[in-house]
Amino acid sequence: MSSTIAIDAMGGDFGPQVTIPASLKCLAANPNLNIILVGDEGVLNGMLVDALAKYNDRLSVQHASQQVEMDEKPQSALRSKKDSSMRVAINLVRDGQAGACVSAGNTGALMAIARFVLKMIPGIDRPAIISTLPSTFGHTHILDLGANVDCTAEHLYQFAIMGEEVVKAVEGIAEPRIGLLNIGEEDMKGNEQVKAAAKLLESSSLNYIGYVEGNSINAGSVKVDLIVTDGFVGNVALKSIEGAAKLFSTKLKELFSKNIFTKLAAVVAYPVLKLFKESIDPRLYNGASFIGLRGLVIKSHGGADELAFLTAIQLAEIEIEQGVTRKISDKVAVTLENRG
Amino acid sequence: MSSTIAIDAMGGDFGPQVTIPASLKCLAANPNLNIILVGDEGVLNGMLVDALAKYNDRLSVQHASQQVEMDEKPQSALRSKKDSSMRVAINLVRDGQAGACVSAGNTGALMAIARFVLKMIPGIDRPAIISTLPSTFGHTHILDLGANVDCTAEHLYQFAIMGEEVVKAVEGIAEPRIGLLNIGEEDMKGNEQVKAAAKLLESSSLNYIGYVEGNSINAGSVKVDLIVTDGFVGNVALKSIEGAAKLFSTKLKELFSKNIFTKLAAVVAYPVLKLFKESIDPRLYNGASFIGLRGLVIKSHGGADELAFLTAIQLAEIEIEQGVTRKISDKVAVTLENRG
Repeated sequence: MSSTIAIDAMGGDFGPQVTIPASLKCLAANPNLNIILVGDEGVLNGMLVDALAKYNDRLSVQHASQQVEMDEKPQSALRSKKDSSMRVAINLVRDGQAGACVSAGNTGALMAIARFVLKMIPGIDRPAIISTLPSTFGHTHILDLGANVDCTAEHLYQFAIMGEEVVKAVEGIAEPRIGLLNIGEEDMKGNEQVKAAAKLLESSSLNYIGYVEGNSINAGSVKVDLIVTDGFVGNVALKSIEGAAKLFSTKLKELFSKNIFTKLAAVVAYPVLKLFKESIDPRLYNGASFIGLRGLVIKSHGGADELAFLTAIQLAEIEIEQGVTRKISDKVAVTLENRG
Repeated sequence: MSSTIAIDAMGGDFGPQVTIPASLKCLAANPNLNIILVGDEGVLNGMLVDALAKYNDRLSVQHASQQVEMDEKPQSALRSKKDSSMRVAINLVRDGQAGACVSAGNTGALMAIARFVLKMIPGIDRPAIISTLPSTFGHTHILDLGANVDCTAEHLYQFAIMGEEVVKAVEGIAEPRIGLLNIGEEDMKGNEQVKAAAKLLESSSLNYIGYVEGNSINAGSVKVDLIVTDGFVGNVALKSIEGAAKLFSTKLKELFSKNIFTKLAAVVAYPVLKLFKESIDPRLYNGASFIGLRGLVIKSHGGADELAFLTAIQLAEIEIEQGVTRKISDKVAVTLENRG
């Protein structure tokens, strides 16, 4: 079965310089993939002469006359950029012409437009952002990463229900182990929302393992597949880990380039250091899914290079193939029926 | 001028096995330091025969018949452990016999007892926990790390005032650069408390530089000396960074011990890897100060080894010498006068 992805070709810090080569690599790798590149057709067609011929009906360009700026306010983008590459790409998802949209553009604008155009899945109050990080056990999925700064227990519970479907689909795990992010593992710890969410999760059919702390994202004492938290905490945790990774790589580089002896050591250790770099390469974890909407939207890091953007497209491919949006809708419908 | 520190000798995962050797090293290093070891005098005297003779009036043992368990509920410790090593050590601070107390015991119990025994500085609503992390610019201090799960803007503002005095004292920086932790740097980002706290900080005399994101703790684009946040977010950020550090060191170790070639590479790279490990060694950042109380309490990591516990004692030495508690009280008094 073929999948079609709409790419916001103009989004991100590098626009078509990154989105086009990444798209072409994905087309080459997956013969069942179709891509619609959305953006200024003058620019895109000029860069795609050979590719359009090569991929024929698997690759097309959809014109969009506007572009959402990286620092544009979401409300302004929503009101005045109705023909932006971002909006047109999301429209293609709404109209069923694409199974997902991938954009490296302005996160706030992407969320506002996606929510406005696609609407919410009935039963879900708020969309959430979910992504993956490496852990000593493999991967940890975490949500919400910034869509919601204040969350009730019910919101956190809904995130768990949606997140479980994503983890099942992406990791192929039957019953993902779900943890609730807190500042201690004891019952008495945490704020009111978290304590109330724990009660909802305990009485649900989800494989809820209890409270987990921040270290569980990358290296906890027990495996956790999905960590649920509000968007403020999740975003801070994600960025704190990014900062830690940058500190470690900066220090390592600094120490290995100190003098002739350390530089020689770096040469000898190069194969290992290369594997190390690859094993924690954030580009291989690029791509956050907006879930809770009636259509798939994948947000790539704005500064994504070709490899990183390609990773985000591949995530979209998997989530389309697995029918993540439908699975979430079905699960929500069943869960709501059971409750009411 | 001499300083006296009361050590909860029984606290932490290893008790006197760690607290005693660390204390003796500090006594050897600082001739102006006096230490009172608090705990079971039978146990302590037995381990201190030579040291008590050597350090004479600089080292003493204060008997305490009880011990707070690592998993004991704070309220239970507060009510039923009135002769615990933790409580007696804090009493010594209240009575002016010690300038600070250092404990590796149960955090919740330590905070509850410290608050009950020492009382708050007038004008401060809640105590906070502050600690230091390495950054590409040197160090970043961050508070609150878990004392308060829900904070108003006023609480965050008070944390900034207190934290500034700690950073001035510990780092010798005249006007520490203060950032407010948020999920974006734009004005519109964040929850209501954070937005309101930003207004208070902007109109204060503090060197407030604006919102910072999670990555600024270890490696932001601009230097920030003090990051202010609530205890839930601060605790998650701190532990997320701990998890990232553990993941990186685990991966590095794994890759270097893969086969005979990588093991040889590890031998060649050993001096650099050793320096790397030291440069991010969490033991050198051990010690979190409870501030806002009428006396100094330093919390060491429960699993601290000798080096880590020694670091926490040294932090207490600096904060006593610098008169951090008095400086906070004075600043709070002046700030309150100016406001009202």
